[in-house]
Amino acid sequence: MFSRLFAPTTTVSAHCDLPCGVYDPAQARIEAQSVKAVIEKYNAADASDPAFKARCLFIKEERSDLVKHHLWVLWTDYFKPPHFEKYPQLHDLFNQATKLAGAGGTKSSTDVAVADQLLAKIDEIAEIFWETKKA
Amino acid sequence: MFSRLFAPTTTVSAHCDLPCGVYDPAQARIEAQSVKAVIEKYNAADASDPAFKARCLFIKEERSDLVKHHLWVLWTDYFKPPHFEKYPQLHDLFNQATKLAGAGGTKSSTDVAVADQLLAKIDEIAEIFWETKKA
Amino acid sequence: MFSRLFAPTTTVSAHCDLPCGVYDPAQARIEAQSVKAVIEKYNAADASDPAFKARCLFIKEERSDLVKHHLWVLWTDYFKPPHFEKYPQLHDLFNQATKLAGAGGTKSSTDVAVADQLLAKIDEIAEIFWETKKA
Amino acid sequence: MFSRLFAPTTTVSAHCDLPCGVYDPAQARIEAQSVKAVIEKYNAADASDPAFKARCLFIKEERSDLVKHHLWVLWTDYFKPPHFEKYPQLHDLFNQATKLAGAGGTKSSTDVAVADQLLAKIDEIAEIFWETKKA
Amino acid sequence: MFSRLFAPTTTVSAHCDLPCGVYDPAQARIEAQSVKAVIEKYNAADASDPAFKARCLFIKEERSDLVKHHLWVLWTDYFKPPHFEKYPQLHDLFNQATKLAGAGGTKSSTDVAVADQLLAKIDEIAEIFWETKKA
Amino acid sequence: MFSRLFAPTTTVSAHCDLPCGVYDPAQARIEAQSVKAVIEKYNAADASDPAFKARCLFIKEERSDLVKHHLWVLWTDYFKPPHFEKYPQLHDLFNQATKLAGAGGTKSSTDVAVADQLLAKIDEIAEIFWETKKA
Repeated sequence: MFSRLFAPTTTVSAHCDLPCGVYDPAQARIEAQSVKAVIEKYNAADASDPAFKARCLFIKEERSDLVKHHLWVLWTDYFKPPHFEKYPQLHDLFNQATKLAGAGGTKSSTDVAVADQLLAKIDEIAEIFWETKKA
Repeated sequence: MFSRLFAPTTTVSAHCDLPCGVYDPAQARIEAQSVKAVIEKYNAADASDPAFKARCLFIKEERSDLVKHHLWVLWTDYFKPPHFEKYPQLHDLFNQATKLAGAGGTKSSTDVAVADQLLAKIDEIAEIFWETKKA
Repeated sequence: MFSRLFAPTTTVSAHCDLPCGVYDPAQARIEAQSVKAVIEKYNAADASDPAFKARCLFIKEERSDLVKHHLWVLWTDYFKPPHFEKYPQLHDLFNQATKLAGAGGTKSSTDVAVADQLLAKIDEIAEIFWETKKA
Repeated sequence: MFSRLFAPTTTVSAHCDLPCGVYDPAQARIEAQSVKAVIEKYNAADASDPAFKARCLFIKEERSDLVKHHLWVLWTDYFKPPHFEKYPQLHDLFNQATKLAGAGGTKSSTDVAVADQLLAKIDEIAEIFWETKKA
Repeated sequence: MFSRLFAPTTTVSAHCDLPCGVYDPAQARIEAQSVKAVIEKYNAADASDPAFKARCLFIKEERSDLVKHHLWVLWTDYFKPPHFEKYPQLHDLFNQATKLAGAGGTKSSTDVAVADQLLAKIDEIAEIFWETKKA
Repeated sequence: MFSRLFAPTTTVSAHCDLPCGVYDPAQARIEAQSVKAVIEKYNAADASDPAFKARCLFIKEERSDLVKHHLWVLWTDYFKPPHFEKYPQLHDLFNQATKLAGAGGTKSSTDVAVADQLLAKIDEIAEIFWETKKA
């Protein structure tokens, strides 16, 4: 599924709210990958290095915020009423994904499984996104 | 007037993603009021003052972004699955409201009616918000 | 409750530096309420959850900064020389309030009483603000 | 020239709200110098290059905001009650300087004289600042 | 070359300065694609819609800044001395690419060819980046 | 001392990417001084005040980022190809300095010697900067 995600060059499209028309779920995914990597480093870190662990925590907070932001932009700016009709699960999917990058998700948790759930939700969104681009 | 605004302190609820539990649709509304005021000033401005008109445009862009942000925070951080069940229109309401503060709304438009539509959507959301707080 | 909050729309006044003319001390107050709530959660948190406590600390830092910012905007952008003449205590009030949201106040402290002092100062400012709006 | 600027390292003082104790009015002055330079370029620009003139306007807006921010930080974080007692004009000075970097000053104006007034106010503040550092 | 760029999932690597180890030139490229799309829309826009053209200009400014930021992060945080030894052109490449996203590039220009030059430079960087990841 | 600092106004040069032409390595140096001061306070702090130590860590992170940003701006926006020809060490100097303000430098370290190394690199850059201004 991932290779489909990035395969066609023309798909690196739009994202700013001009709108320039260039949206790409990769932006959210890269940040979520980062969140996951930070959690792994946090868990691997020695308890005797509290400064490193503290840095992990606020970088994780900041990167989780970026995940939320990129997903919100897709939900509001890219997806249109016909998409929501065709994919009735889309609203919930975005709400759940952004919650997974929030206080009930990767912001509070240091469990790598939560980051994996977030990545899985982003992949579900990305799959729909690329279907709509092909349509 | 002031005492009426602040008297019931429990109405000033929560908003940060600790979560601190303090959410308030007033944050989005204040920014939307600002967007409306900027549009009015833009339309009243003399064509011979392009610098002022330019300032209106990017302040409007920035304030519209803040409206979107405050609404997204409410949608993801405050509202929970039981709310979405009880108010099935809530997803659409937020999607429409944030779109009204975006490229298809107050970002591109200089029509005060668009700002009024945005304010009306925020009021619909706020009404539901305060119902859920009383529940 | 909602209708009471939003009914007199003219009370939701101005804040951007166009200026759009929409100022509202509620913006500072909401952030200060958040700071207070975060302090309460910090104190209630279990010492065995250092990650949560760390999150409290930097969210408190960030929200305290927002309090300061909203107050500075009111002091510079809304209040004019005649206000400072009529309310000679206003400069000190703002200086003290912003200090209470800084390093000598809610940024360093985890004492809920400090947040209450900050809220009280904001209320003093708000009272003067609403008097000037009626004038 | 360089050695003169940096030689006495104790003159580069403090500014973050830990507080780290390193404040320096140079931060506000550099931004104000930038505002002035932008105004000069704006006025020198050809009317046939509206894109350049537009860029001048929003860079001027942004840099004026930075001037305000750096001054607010000095006013709240560096100066203490004994300073305000010794320099009773200090509150007004800061209020006027930040207003000069706002909607009634360099934000709305494209007159280089306004930028010069702002720079002069910053220099008055800086002179008091360095006096207090020597004290 | 592009398909090589995104093909293997493990290539969505790192970018935050923990460092989390997840860098990806796609972040800079997406923003540069946006800059190009904005320029195209700017040039296609009717002169009678100055508000839209103004929006294009400051969105272009903002997105160009993001290009610069993402490239700077790669240059400082990802690339190490051995990379600079193996690819002696790398410093210049980054300096030229960031300049192309600045005042002498897409910030001042509304020529789509400049955006294409920027994209080409990013692709050169990306090619080296992926070579070093395979190494 | 003050008059010496500001007297030759032409020395406070340029920095925004209009470009306004006002660059000054003092911006990076002030932030680096702050990083050093924060490290000193961190090391002097009592282990029994974890909240203060946590604040030190994220303020240090934020200020280190500002150092990097100001240096990147100088490297891309101020320095031109002839400078890089005349000072072939300049690319490495900037790369090393920004790394010293990053994960391998003041971001991860709480050793004041690392901050001193960063300050020394900034001084090397500043010396070249002022030479080019005189040229």
